[in-house]
Amino acid sequence: MNQLIIVKISGNIVDDDHALQHFLKSFAAINQAKILVHGGGKLATRMAETMGIQQQMVNGRRITDAETLKIVTMVYAGYINKNIVAQLQQYGANAIGLTGADANAILAHKRKGKMPDAVDYGFVGDIDEVNAVFFNGLIQQLLVPVVSPITHDGNGQLLNTNADTIAQSIATAMSTFYETVLIYSFEKKGVLLNINNPDSVIPLIDAAYYNTLKTNQQIFAGMIPKLDNAFTAIEQGVAKVIIGNADELAELINGKAGTTIQHG
Amino acid sequence: MNQLIIVKISGNIVDDDHALQHFLKSFAAINQAKILVHGGGKLATRMAETMGIQQQMVNGRRITDAETLKIVTMVYAGYINKNIVAQLQQYGANAIGLTGADANAILAHKRKGKMPDAVDYGFVGDIDEVNAVFFNGLIQQLLVPVVSPITHDGNGQLLNTNADTIAQSIATAMSTFYETVLIYSFEKKGVLLNINNPDSVIPLIDAAYYNTLKTNQQIFAGMIPKLDNAFTAIEQGVAKVIIGNADELAELINGKAGTTIQHG
Repeated sequence: MNQLIIVKISGNIVDDDHALQHFLKSFAAINQAKILVHGGGKLATRMAETMGIQQQMVNGRRITDAETLKIVTMVYAGYINKNIVAQLQQYGANAIGLTGADANAILAHKRKGKMPDAVDYGFVGDIDEVNAVFFNGLIQQLLVPVVSPITHDGNGQLLNTNADTIAQSIATAMSTFYETVLIYSFEKKGVLLNINNPDSVIPLIDAAYYNTLKTNQQIFAGMIPKLDNAFTAIEQGVAKVIIGNADELAELINGKAGTTIQHG
Repeated sequence: MNQLIIVKISGNIVDDDHALQHFLKSFAAINQAKILVHGGGKLATRMAETMGIQQQMVNGRRITDAETLKIVTMVYAGYINKNIVAQLQQYGANAIGLTGADANAILAHKRKGKMPDAVDYGFVGDIDEVNAVFFNGLIQQLLVPVVSPITHDGNGQLLNTNADTIAQSIATAMSTFYETVLIYSFEKKGVLLNINNPDSVIPLIDAAYYNTLKTNQQIFAGMIPKLDNAFTAIEQGVAKVIIGNADELAELINGKAGTTIQHG
C-alpha cells in the first residue's frame, strides 16, 4: 500500500503569516500523496468583533449562530483556504481547496445537544461520512486537497466542524486505499510531560501509557481531545499519528521529532 | 460533440435569496454537462461598509486594494460560492466550488494600467489561461463546477476577476471538447431595444446587426461589455451565447426566451 500523509495545521499557525509560509513550503515539498486540513485561527473572531457581532456562549462553549456561521464560512472557506491554495500553487503543489459541501466530500449532521442540559450548539456539524472515492480521485490526478473546517448536511446547510476531527475522519476513511499517517501540527514540539517545559516532548504514547498519563493527571487537559481523536484514528485503521511543531514538518514525517501515537 | 452549458448568474440574482433558489433548482435540473459561474453581488460592498473600509475609486472605477481583495475573497469564494454549492447538492447536482487558484483552474495576471493615465486597478486579474483539461476531468466525473470570480497569478496572488469574462473564457476553452453554449443570465429578459420596455427583447443579434445597433446608439451602454464578451466567445469557437432572465433558464436553453448571439 502507498503511504498518504494527512497534515492538520492549527489556527495558531494559520494566524502567523511567517510560520504559515514556512509550513506551506515544507508541506509542498513532501514528495508523496498528501492532504492538508486547516483550522480557523483568530481572524473570524476579529471579523465578528469588527462587525459588532456578539459571540454567543453557553456553559463556556462558543455557539455557532447564523451570523457566526456566515463569518466562519467567509473566513475559513474563503480567505484562509484560498490564500493557502494560491501559496501552495506558488510552491509547486497543485492544491485544490474544499469544504465538505464540495463534491459532497464530507457529509455531517447538525449536532444535537445532549440531555439533561441539551445545549443547542447551533450550526456545528458532526461527521457522518467522508467521500474517500472522491479524495482518492483527486490524489490519483496528483492534486493536493486543502480542506477547510466547514461541512454540509446534504440539505443545503453548511456546518462549522472541528478541524482535528475532519483530519481524523479523512485519515480513517482513506485507510481503505492507503497506509495513512496523520500529523497534527501546531506551535508546540509535541505532547509535553511538563507543560512549562517546551522540550519535555513524550516521544511515544500507546494506549496503556495514555491511560497512565490520564490517571496520574500528567497530561495537559487541552491536549486530551486531540489525543482522543488520535487514538480513534489508530483504532480505526490509521497507521500512525504524529503530534508536533508545524515548523519541523519533515522531521515529524521521518520520525525525528514530535510525539508518535501508535498501537500498544 | 456533446453539448456543454456554461451559465453565468449576475450579482443581482445572487443578492436575492428567492430568485437564487429558483435559479439553482432549474440549474440543477439541466440534464446535461454544465458549469456555473457566479458574480459577486452587493454583499461585499455592504461588508466593506460595515467594517469601515473605504471604497477606492479612480476615474469612476472601483479599485481592488488589498483590503477589498480580502473581502471579495471571503464573500465570493467563501460565503456565496459555498452556499451555492450546498444548495446545488440539496437539489441533486454534485457541485464543486472553485476559484481560479484551485487546481490552477484559471491563471491570470494583474491588470496593467494603460497609458496615458496608467490607472492601477489594484488586484484585478486579466485571464491568461483556463485549465480545460481539469474542468473536463470534473465533468467526466459528473461533477458540476461552480466558479467564483477570483483567479490567481501562479505566484501566490489572488486576483478579483470579472465573472462575465471568466464565463466567456471557460466557454471558449471548453470548445475544444464540447459544443459550448454560454448563457448570461440576469434580472432582465434579454437585450432590450428600449431600456424602458422590459418586453422589448431582441431575439437574435449577429455581428452586422450589433454594429448597426451600436452605430445608431440603440443599445444600452451597460450592455456593451457583455455583448463584446459574447461576440469574443462566438469568434473563438463558442457555438451560441444566450442573454436572458435567470428566472427562465429552461426557456433560455431551449431557445424560447432571451436574446441569442450567433455568427452572422
